[in-house]
Amino acid sequence: MIKVCVIGMGNVGHCAARTVLLEKDMELVGIIMRTPRALDAEGLSGVEVVQKIGDLSVKPDVAILCTPTRAVESVAKECLKQGISTVDCFDIHGDIVALRRTLDQAAKATGAVAVTASGWDPGSDSIVRTLMQAAAPKGITYTNFGPGMSMGHSVAAKSKPAVKDALSMTIPLGTGVHRRMVYIEVEDGCTYEEAAAQIKADDYFSHDETHVIAVDHIEDLKDVGHGVHMVRKGVSGETHNQIFSFDMKINNPALTAQMMVASARAATRQQPGCYTLIELPVIDFLCGEREPLIGKLV
Amino acid sequence: MIKVCVIGMGNVGHCAARTVLLEKDMELVGIIMRTPRALDAEGLSGVEVVQKIGDLSVKPDVAILCTPTRAVESVAKECLKQGISTVDCFDIHGDIVALRRTLDQAAKATGAVAVTASGWDPGSDSIVRTLMQAAAPKGITYTNFGPGMSMGHSVAAKSKPAVKDALSMTIPLGTGVHRRMVYIEVEDGCTYEEAAAQIKADDYFSHDETHVIAVDHIEDLKDVGHGVHMVRKGVSGETHNQIFSFDMKINNPALTAQMMVASARAATRQQPGCYTLIELPVIDFLCGEREPLIGKLV
Repeated sequence: MIKVCVIGMGNVGHCAARTVLLEKDMELVGIIMRTPRALDAEGLSGVEVVQKIGDLSVKPDVAILCTPTRAVESVAKECLKQGISTVDCFDIHGDIVALRRTLDQAAKATGAVAVTASGWDPGSDSIVRTLMQAAAPKGITYTNFGPGMSMGHSVAAKSKPAVKDALSMTIPLGTGVHRRMVYIEVEDGCTYEEAAAQIKADDYFSHDETHVIAVDHIEDLKDVGHGVHMVRKGVSGETHNQIFSFDMKINNPALTAQMMVASARAATRQQPGCYTLIELPVIDFLCGEREPLIGKLV
Repeated sequence: MIKVCVIGMGNVGHCAARTVLLEKDMELVGIIMRTPRALDAEGLSGVEVVQKIGDLSVKPDVAILCTPTRAVESVAKECLKQGISTVDCFDIHGDIVALRRTLDQAAKATGAVAVTASGWDPGSDSIVRTLMQAAAPKGITYTNFGPGMSMGHSVAAKSKPAVKDALSMTIPLGTGVHRRMVYIEVEDGCTYEEAAAQIKADDYFSHDETHVIAVDHIEDLKDVGHGVHMVRKGVSGETHNQIFSFDMKINNPALTAQMMVASARAATRQQPGCYTLIELPVIDFLCGEREPLIGKLV
């Protein structure tokens, strides 16, 4: 049994903890949260809840980090220092290589494994993108996101003075171009026009087609469904017009959590160091013996 | 530079050889064929052509086996015995586990690597199937093939006494159910009715909806395009209705060859033993340094 703990109890953390309970080869040895509380009402009764990973009565093999992306590096280092492997869903694409280097050093120092940038994009999508590239080395891949909520864009919109609350939906227009549908509650004493202007001026929105719509209750709009349409047209050897596409319509935190839990399993099967998902054999994500899996899936 | 040879000069072998010439990190050190001939007209001038792998003047690191599937085991063993790694496109799904065991022993005996069941199905599709299983561990995956020629079914149809030549097209009907469109030239002195009855009685066709159509020239119908529609609806953690699909429309020998060439590269990056594609990190298929690839694809 792989001993797993979950750090952070947001949407993804809660899903991850409940998912670990369903895995036949895993044991949930604890939950780490800033302000520990009993989690009986959340389907996690009997699970030890502590503030620091060192306080757990059973030392975990792997910690699943469901913290904000900016906290990943320090939390992961803290775990790795204690020889506990980590899985994170760090999602700032441009900073993944640097984080991987840092965590690689930290992991190797104690013989642990860090799986970084898990989840679905980066994550499972990255595997599909890499496979498409291998199948047709020349060509163009487009990743189209949505329809679905963008957390980053929602936070950016919400930060404007004239905005009380906001939700930004990402709408795929094809060839990697996206429309932003931004639903807002206007701040008391401000106007819709002020709010819309502040949002559209932000770098998060100024490059995309952006629509701002005033609503009464943001809460009534929330739906964690999301999607991807990834497509590559390219060349295999000398043969052009090879066409590949990958689509999914999914519950975002549920898939993120499931991929992280699968990555926790994969972590136990690697040599010390830090890995992105494209560096892991996909069979390592699965519970069970190799030969029956090969017989069923290859 | 990875030294590669190609064994067999059918459709796939020819594509594989031409593809190796395009790869920046590979060198085509020879072609092995039963009856060696100059291959200048086939865009392979200057490449050494011999009857046995041991006759090559430069020892290859990897041999790409483009032989009939039934010949794979003996040809692979012959290469592995000489410490030459192998890639094959063995495609009898039910026999892959047994072949992997045999080649694993043979490879480890000389410190070589065998990549087995490469190509697209088994092959790249297997990676997608495994990834979908990881993303939603409970649920059903359907693999729908076509429209495209089925070599196995064409050979089966052609083997009937009343059939002079045949081509069997696989038509996807969804949920893994396929229609067989069998085009035939009727043997002289036989009737269409005899031919159709012989084909429909064969185990290859008796379980599927099969239509037999007489034509004048099978050759005029040949098109190596093929396709796949793979779909999984399943459960991530406790969340149902997670929907994934993968589609491709491709030139069959070109994609088979490209995946085998990518697998030859991956072979040079593994510990001795035999691997199916789901046991290889997808990044190992790609030419280039790890960090730039991670920066671009993750």
